[in-house]
Amino acid sequence: MIDISSKDVVFREARAEGYIRLREETIRLIREGKIEKGDVFTIAKVAAIQAVKKVPEVLPLCHNIPITFVDVKFQVVSRKRVRVEAIVRTSARTGVEMEALTAVVVALLNVWDLVKKYEKDEGGQYPWTVIEGVRVTSKIKEQTNTCQGC
Amino acid sequence: MIDISSKDVVFREARAEGYIRLREETIRLIREGKIEKGDVFTIAKVAAIQAVKKVPEVLPLCHNIPITFVDVKFQVVSRKRVRVEAIVRTSARTGVEMEALTAVVVALLNVWDLVKKYEKDEGGQYPWTVIEGVRVTSKIKEQTNTCQGC
Amino acid sequence: MIDISSKDVVFREARAEGYIRLREETIRLIREGKIEKGDVFTIAKVAAIQAVKKVPEVLPLCHNIPITFVDVKFQVVSRKRVRVEAIVRTSARTGVEMEALTAVVVALLNVWDLVKKYEKDEGGQYPWTVIEGVRVTSKIKEQTNTCQGC
Amino acid sequence: MIDISSKDVVFREARAEGYIRLREETIRLIREGKIEKGDVFTIAKVAAIQAVKKVPEVLPLCHNIPITFVDVKFQVVSRKRVRVEAIVRTSARTGVEMEALTAVVVALLNVWDLVKKYEKDEGGQYPWTVIEGVRVTSKIKEQTNTCQGC
Amino acid sequence: MIDISSKDVVFREARAEGYIRLREETIRLIREGKIEKGDVFTIAKVAAIQAVKKVPEVLPLCHNIPITFVDVKFQVVSRKRVRVEAIVRTSARTGVEMEALTAVVVALLNVWDLVKKYEKDEGGQYPWTVIEGVRVTSKIKEQTNTCQGC
Amino acid sequence: MIDISSKDVVFREARAEGYIRLREETIRLIREGKIEKGDVFTIAKVAAIQAVKKVPEVLPLCHNIPITFVDVKFQVVSRKRVRVEAIVRTSARTGVEMEALTAVVVALLNVWDLVKKYEKDEGGQYPWTVIEGVRVTSKIKEQTNTCQGC
Repeated sequence: MIDISSKDVVFREARAEGYIRLREETIRLIREGKIEKGDVFTIAKVAAIQAVKKVPEVLPLCHNIPITFVDVKFQVVSRKRVRVEAIVRTSARTGVEMEALTAVVVALLNVWDLVKKYEKDEGGQYPWTVIEGVRVTSKIKEQTNTCQGC
Repeated sequence: MIDISSKDVVFREARAEGYIRLREETIRLIREGKIEKGDVFTIAKVAAIQAVKKVPEVLPLCHNIPITFVDVKFQVVSRKRVRVEAIVRTSARTGVEMEALTAVVVALLNVWDLVKKYEKDEGGQYPWTVIEGVRVTSKIKEQTNTCQGC
Repeated sequence: MIDISSKDVVFREARAEGYIRLREETIRLIREGKIEKGDVFTIAKVAAIQAVKKVPEVLPLCHNIPITFVDVKFQVVSRKRVRVEAIVRTSARTGVEMEALTAVVVALLNVWDLVKKYEKDEGGQYPWTVIEGVRVTSKIKEQTNTCQGC
Repeated sequence: MIDISSKDVVFREARAEGYIRLREETIRLIREGKIEKGDVFTIAKVAAIQAVKKVPEVLPLCHNIPITFVDVKFQVVSRKRVRVEAIVRTSARTGVEMEALTAVVVALLNVWDLVKKYEKDEGGQYPWTVIEGVRVTSKIKEQTNTCQGC
Repeated sequence: MIDISSKDVVFREARAEGYIRLREETIRLIREGKIEKGDVFTIAKVAAIQAVKKVPEVLPLCHNIPITFVDVKFQVVSRKRVRVEAIVRTSARTGVEMEALTAVVVALLNVWDLVKKYEKDEGGQYPWTVIEGVRVTSKIKEQTNTCQGC
Repeated sequence: MIDISSKDVVFREARAEGYIRLREETIRLIREGKIEKGDVFTIAKVAAIQAVKKVPEVLPLCHNIPITFVDVKFQVVSRKRVRVEAIVRTSARTGVEMEALTAVVVALLNVWDLVKKYEKDEGGQYPWTVIEGVRVTSKIKEQTNTCQGC
């Protein structure tokens, strides 16, 4: 674990994105709110927010830091792809890109889990489903002169 | 949560894979064991095994089941890509593909976290790093006649 | 912790219910889907399902058992009350009434958290909000002759 | 999750209370220290303190904040009722009323779990036991001019 | 993680013990129930039981198995030593010696935490306090012919 | 839980150590990297770092504080003993000696778990293995005049 004892507590933000490829039929069922397990994007969003708070457990060398904001957005970007974007903010001694990435992959895993039934072929396999394009889209660090709100 | 009360306890296995694209220089440092945070694949493997046991927390609609085996393998597949493969086994009322997928993405997130320093550009951004190709490669369910080992 | 080593693994179910008293205005906003934090009953349901899996952590003397089913239902029962009902099933050596009760109280706490803003008076206090009537409504244990699904 | 990035770190305190109705006989056994599972109020208190630290997991939209104090008190208020009161303090960007409420309900659930045996009727049902009157009794926020202890 | 998929589900028990050396004065205060933080052995016992259920998180290569019994006993064995003994039982595919050892060390750590104030010298150091003699005292595995209770 | 609301946020460090006695043959296998479960010291180190972040769960009366640094070192100190040393740092209202001790005992428990196979006698017992000499070696608190990094 990197020693961040002497680093400054500053405002930090990270954004990440990722995609899941699904069958056209599944995308249609999501859009029409007909997925048996419930509202896919609301459930996946709740799970992603919780995952941000679990980062110190899931990534052994990450520090536990007080997260001040998480948002996760879902968008059907084509007939076969869903895009997830996550934003995470903190005032801490280290950045939150791993938190944003974790929010994205956990959101995508939950989408998969919620639509499993519609993605399987007759042999119970998943020939179409793929998680891809998971990347950090921006990272910000604001070195403020005054110690606002601390 | 799907009702699995009347499903049979049978042997189940799932395999999943995924990739992370890194800079050539980072791959070289991993190969030479020169990453400052430590042995990348051993740390990522430990984290992935632990993540399998956290699936019921990370995926709200997944059941808590007794995992009997997890393995996670890492392979440098080109000058710029690392492949992760996970195998998960159980004797339970439901399958373990979400567990195998979770092992893969958590292993990939940990690789990223461990090599962060070498992947950032001078502005602290990650223009090259991407997680991709995360899929289930096989799912097995063995309906045995006799109740072995239970 | 009670010794359940020699108890039989049988099908078990428990149901519990509970109520939260809210302001009429808050109930109206929930009904119209206008709560700023999101879909109150979906979020509270996800949290309640996850809480069932956390019972061995939250109740120190409870055993960790494989839950096979959880459902949580919400109902606006008057202009000022929401009712939550939870059903939990397992095949285990001990009952699940604490799991059903935990699902109910965690669902109610989450409803509260999601509508906090609308329940506070101008002094930031909660003069109207109350959780009440939390009870076990039924407990079932089916001693089957044959060892189904094990 | 509400964005608290620009909120001030100030001293905050919340108090909550709640009740459990038990059989007279059970209350008598608690008072005489004859409950088989152990010292009811000490065990329930430990569990409630731990639950405060679990609030960010149990309530998905709650922030993880550094708790500086928790106390939980138990009082037999009549021949059939036990009262629980919780006090929680922090120096953080958001209040702790959900933490105080969680402490109260987890304390009450643990009392129930510890006396289950004495509350069941011959059919294994709980016709008498009820959790009720769970409310926030006070919420304080001290906007201090100087940044004490930070 | 070792593959236990084909191992038998049998009754298993493990016992472990360990010691903590404390100052005579601290032992006297424990005996007289005068420790400010509360009833040392009850709190440490609750924590130890919970730790058994956390073994799959604390020991990465341990399997998650259904624990059927935990007991933890405390004994003042001399003017300067407290002995802790833990018993853990399960019906599972693997043994529980790591669970018994974890119960012992977590009980001992909690004793330390609860009496910290009385063990420190004027410089805030701990010249006397030591955890020692932590070992497995017995391990049992009962290969029963009939599949009792499963 | 002690009230630390009015204590200062200062830099704090604690160091702890502990030992595990193993068979000569096991020590030799560790040294030669021949332990079947993998690289003993790397796995035990990862587990110990994660355990530090779990202290508020494992020790009920400990506060959740932001850890800024953890290091864990392993040393074969004789033909039959391994020494573990842990260093933990924070900027918080309370010290980290329990975190350092927890890192040490969890590291030692993991060493045991990883070499179990080589430590058992033919009856499956552990006549040689012992955890011992677990103590705090130093505790530092730096009352700085200026509020560095906050």
